[in-house]
Amino acid sequence: MANGVIMLCFLVLTFSGHYMVVASDPKPLQDFCVADLTSSARVNGVPCKDPSLAQANDFSFSGLHISGNTSNAVGSKVTPVGVTQLPGLNTLGISLVRIDYAPWGLNPPHTHPRATEIITVLEGSLLVGFVTSNPDNRLISKILYKGDVFVFPIGLVHFQQNVGNVNAVAIAGLSSQNPGVITIANTVFGSNPSIANDLLAKAFQVDKTIIDQIQGMF
Amino acid sequence: MANGVIMLCFLVLTFSGHYMVVASDPKPLQDFCVADLTSSARVNGVPCKDPSLAQANDFSFSGLHISGNTSNAVGSKVTPVGVTQLPGLNTLGISLVRIDYAPWGLNPPHTHPRATEIITVLEGSLLVGFVTSNPDNRLISKILYKGDVFVFPIGLVHFQQNVGNVNAVAIAGLSSQNPGVITIANTVFGSNPSIANDLLAKAFQVDKTIIDQIQGMF
Amino acid sequence: MANGVIMLCFLVLTFSGHYMVVASDPKPLQDFCVADLTSSARVNGVPCKDPSLAQANDFSFSGLHISGNTSNAVGSKVTPVGVTQLPGLNTLGISLVRIDYAPWGLNPPHTHPRATEIITVLEGSLLVGFVTSNPDNRLISKILYKGDVFVFPIGLVHFQQNVGNVNAVAIAGLSSQNPGVITIANTVFGSNPSIANDLLAKAFQVDKTIIDQIQGMF
Amino acid sequence: MANGVIMLCFLVLTFSGHYMVVASDPKPLQDFCVADLTSSARVNGVPCKDPSLAQANDFSFSGLHISGNTSNAVGSKVTPVGVTQLPGLNTLGISLVRIDYAPWGLNPPHTHPRATEIITVLEGSLLVGFVTSNPDNRLISKILYKGDVFVFPIGLVHFQQNVGNVNAVAIAGLSSQNPGVITIANTVFGSNPSIANDLLAKAFQVDKTIIDQIQGMF
Amino acid sequence: MANGVIMLCFLVLTFSGHYMVVASDPKPLQDFCVADLTSSARVNGVPCKDPSLAQANDFSFSGLHISGNTSNAVGSKVTPVGVTQLPGLNTLGISLVRIDYAPWGLNPPHTHPRATEIITVLEGSLLVGFVTSNPDNRLISKILYKGDVFVFPIGLVHFQQNVGNVNAVAIAGLSSQNPGVITIANTVFGSNPSIANDLLAKAFQVDKTIIDQIQGMF
Amino acid sequence: MANGVIMLCFLVLTFSGHYMVVASDPKPLQDFCVADLTSSARVNGVPCKDPSLAQANDFSFSGLHISGNTSNAVGSKVTPVGVTQLPGLNTLGISLVRIDYAPWGLNPPHTHPRATEIITVLEGSLLVGFVTSNPDNRLISKILYKGDVFVFPIGLVHFQQNVGNVNAVAIAGLSSQNPGVITIANTVFGSNPSIANDLLAKAFQVDKTIIDQIQGMF
Repeated sequence: MANGVIMLCFLVLTFSGHYMVVASDPKPLQDFCVADLTSSARVNGVPCKDPSLAQANDFSFSGLHISGNTSNAVGSKVTPVGVTQLPGLNTLGISLVRIDYAPWGLNPPHTHPRATEIITVLEGSLLVGFVTSNPDNRLISKILYKGDVFVFPIGLVHFQQNVGNVNAVAIAGLSSQNPGVITIANTVFGSNPSIANDLLAKAFQVDKTIIDQIQGMF
Repeated sequence: MANGVIMLCFLVLTFSGHYMVVASDPKPLQDFCVADLTSSARVNGVPCKDPSLAQANDFSFSGLHISGNTSNAVGSKVTPVGVTQLPGLNTLGISLVRIDYAPWGLNPPHTHPRATEIITVLEGSLLVGFVTSNPDNRLISKILYKGDVFVFPIGLVHFQQNVGNVNAVAIAGLSSQNPGVITIANTVFGSNPSIANDLLAKAFQVDKTIIDQIQGMF
Repeated sequence: MANGVIMLCFLVLTFSGHYMVVASDPKPLQDFCVADLTSSARVNGVPCKDPSLAQANDFSFSGLHISGNTSNAVGSKVTPVGVTQLPGLNTLGISLVRIDYAPWGLNPPHTHPRATEIITVLEGSLLVGFVTSNPDNRLISKILYKGDVFVFPIGLVHFQQNVGNVNAVAIAGLSSQNPGVITIANTVFGSNPSIANDLLAKAFQVDKTIIDQIQGMF
Repeated sequence: MANGVIMLCFLVLTFSGHYMVVASDPKPLQDFCVADLTSSARVNGVPCKDPSLAQANDFSFSGLHISGNTSNAVGSKVTPVGVTQLPGLNTLGISLVRIDYAPWGLNPPHTHPRATEIITVLEGSLLVGFVTSNPDNRLISKILYKGDVFVFPIGLVHFQQNVGNVNAVAIAGLSSQNPGVITIANTVFGSNPSIANDLLAKAFQVDKTIIDQIQGMF
Repeated sequence: MANGVIMLCFLVLTFSGHYMVVASDPKPLQDFCVADLTSSARVNGVPCKDPSLAQANDFSFSGLHISGNTSNAVGSKVTPVGVTQLPGLNTLGISLVRIDYAPWGLNPPHTHPRATEIITVLEGSLLVGFVTSNPDNRLISKILYKGDVFVFPIGLVHFQQNVGNVNAVAIAGLSSQNPGVITIANTVFGSNPSIANDLLAKAFQVDKTIIDQIQGMF
Repeated sequence: MANGVIMLCFLVLTFSGHYMVVASDPKPLQDFCVADLTSSARVNGVPCKDPSLAQANDFSFSGLHISGNTSNAVGSKVTPVGVTQLPGLNTLGISLVRIDYAPWGLNPPHTHPRATEIITVLEGSLLVGFVTSNPDNRLISKILYKGDVFVFPIGLVHFQQNVGNVNAVAIAGLSSQNPGVITIANTVFGSNPSIANDLLAKAFQVDKTIIDQIQGMF
């Protein structure tokens, strides 16, 4: 097994910070409603293909065994399998994601506005945590090893960090076909257009120059 | 009317950063289920009182005309009316909140994990905004004046800032009996225990000393 | 403050009996789904605009500070802010409403088939009440003053009456983007076409002549 | 068959005006959650029995073939089979009801705050109708004969009247374990305590003496 | 009454094994959304007609008093009234079904993936049952007589068999506009294309020749 | 990588036929509601622990890297991580499962009454398929290889079979905290007590002796 672990570690890669996973969607009203990603009609979710034209490929996706490229600032990479990648997920309220972490790589603090996430570690060791809402803002965290499972409740800020010298890999399910990802740093300091630096300086209780410095990174 | 505005402005006060508002909850299975806040039983939501003992007071709350105390670091104060304050809201999926803003006071960037928020300005002028999820992180913002209404979709980061020299007041509805509030600064930099400074330094792409400085404020 | 109150009282106005408020809708499957009110496609709710074309104005509405005209038979007026007025509310399950009451003005008994309502009094004093379902038909009522909050559970018959000699104003949140309003008098005695007078005579246990008289008013 | 019809007509009976039918409840989290009607605990819906003690009788009810007694003011009688009568319905979001109508008997205008109703006529002929919400208040009605099916959308005011000289019988499904019934006449004119007669006089645009007369009947 | 029963028994007929009934659907966002069955647009559920064009006939269906033809292999016939037959049911989460059983006729083991079912016996006597999920696979069954009601929880395998020498008739409500029917025998042994016989032989622990024999019947 | 694959293949094991996965549950009304598995109170889902006593361990589970024992009749084994194994999942609508398959091992045809399932292959190659509901009973199937992802819509009959000479491993997410598993063979032929053999003979169109033979295996 040690060899197996080592071999797999070479697969581990780079960062992105956003991913699409598993969320609790509206109840389906037919066996399935395969997303017609070519439709110009826009509804809550995605319009469906004619069900008689649905094929096995509409319900499948390939490539989740391929490590993501973690050569980026945070050293992690998320590969999503949501309704965009797997159209058969439309209306079904779930998605999957693979996350790769370089040694000490970080999936930085973020929330999913539309999903709870359940994660399991395939390789490596991860420090994971989430923070409860106001007023407690309690950090609940733990180091996970291969085979451990952890849950991040819907909407709460959470993160994972590789705390080992080898690559790490995780798989997660999310309770939405399109959970959404809000990476705190990118959203608050890297929005387009920017949030005014004096507003952020007041929010974070620091000088505007520090805000400018952080905003410059995103 | 100008006098009226000025009088009301004296009501405007101080900060907190958390509030409980209106969210979309499980469908009720009876006319009402008044929260029995004294019960030791714990369920999703709150156990109910015997409905034959329900009184008009169980469905009411007093004091939303009283300005919150904004003498705090951010110059705003939220007064919630959720299931804790108004037990008749239990299972009904909605709540209200009053927000007071000192001149230039800020209700800092935050999310509600369980609610969309609809806000209306009673007095003053507010810069409001929300940021879309990854990868766009688009800031959608606008200055609101008395009588304007704005919506912050569920789970997205949003804020309001008083952009006038007088106090401002707003009322908001939220789609949960207990929407939850995640103030970004408090959650990320002021959790208990703290998130490690090197993790946050990597997430925000700054030196640990800056993280230490921000963490010292919360 | 007394001046402030007096000034605001001049804002209070007239009737309509229907309003659109806040209700618990299907879970959103994307950050937002701004209603495309020009679309001819018809679905549950409203089709969406291309999200890349969404603007801040799609999430806002102006004019809730303007008193409604209460010069009508019941002396009240509801100003709704639902998905029709504020397209950004689509799929988000909430709306707001302003209600103006002339002295002794009445928002007559009605139900919202798709929403719970939470109301707060901005000015004046209101007798509010709701009636439980069969077999108890219990009236739960209370006089509300400025700053009081009250909840009307989804689907139950409720009303508000100004019990003061000055105008009154209230703001309410409702748990639907389109809660619907069923004013009992208009629905039962003023439908188009009319419900047969002998049917209503039997239902209300009165002579048909009385039914004819009431129907003549609507 | 004519004989069969005639025989069944003798089964038709008397009135009540309230019934419990089929509604769309929270999603079940286990195979079933049989209502423990003896529990003093109170939650949304009803606490469950130990599932290992559930018996076939918990999922059944007897007597829906027995005609209700229609010897009452409106000449109809509803026999409900909701969670109170059939505890296995708890959390499952549906119920049934039998309605008997004397000749010209009326199930008077009412709403179900928590359910859509689908009705089928077993014997006789019924005028049925529902009224849309404001501002249209459109009456949609039809005479139903044996074997006809009709739907009353959730929350809308609706009624059925026997328009034949023989008894009539119907069965209906409702989308809640406890749909609730709000009979307009009983709720508005027969609440306990009463709604003030001057308030109702204004709502229905008639003299208080007429309100007093109607209130005297309930 | 005996005559009545006998007369009705002649109505009882033949089989199909699939039916569409009552299920818990997404919350409606307007009074109704009559299915536009001619639309080529495809969404979760069905697009709606212009509500101003809705007619009473859109909310009705005729013919549920007509016995189904039970001259088939299993001796039963289901007549569905779902959104396909009654377009006004769209978004309302409920449907009805009539089931006819020849003497000893069987509505064979099946599931509804999207609905709980509540059944009542109009004529005859039925052995009904459902089986709980793994690991108990407990059979809960009972013989029902005229006027008895029984509930089959969502997703569980269930069946009904006429255990009398005369025809039987039942009416059932289901908590979906389109509950779906999965007849076990047809699905497992009669799919198109077939499931491989060696796979089924392993699943059912029998020789492939027996699988071939069963597959030959469907 | 080949070594890695080979090493992991030794992990693959035995059967069970039931597993608990990810389903779309009622919306949470607080940050989390950790299941109090020691409580004697019974509600839809599970009562909660005092949230102030929640610990990181309540949100975690260990051992999903351990291969299940596939030494059984069908050559597969499911290891569930649902609310029973990971109490923090309560009210959050998702779960995970690991499935091990011996060479040619089968996870036999089954349904999840309360969840859609999304599966990914970690090692080996799997023939997977699901069958649509009546009347089409269309088999949609595909061979999956390492890194492939597939979705089984809620309530539909589905299966996986290892089509290689080495062990296979998969991870799946399911849209419920307690999705339930209905293995067709066990439920129909192995219920307790048994379904009568003549009933099953009619349902499957075979002699009772064949039913007896199959029932003898379960």
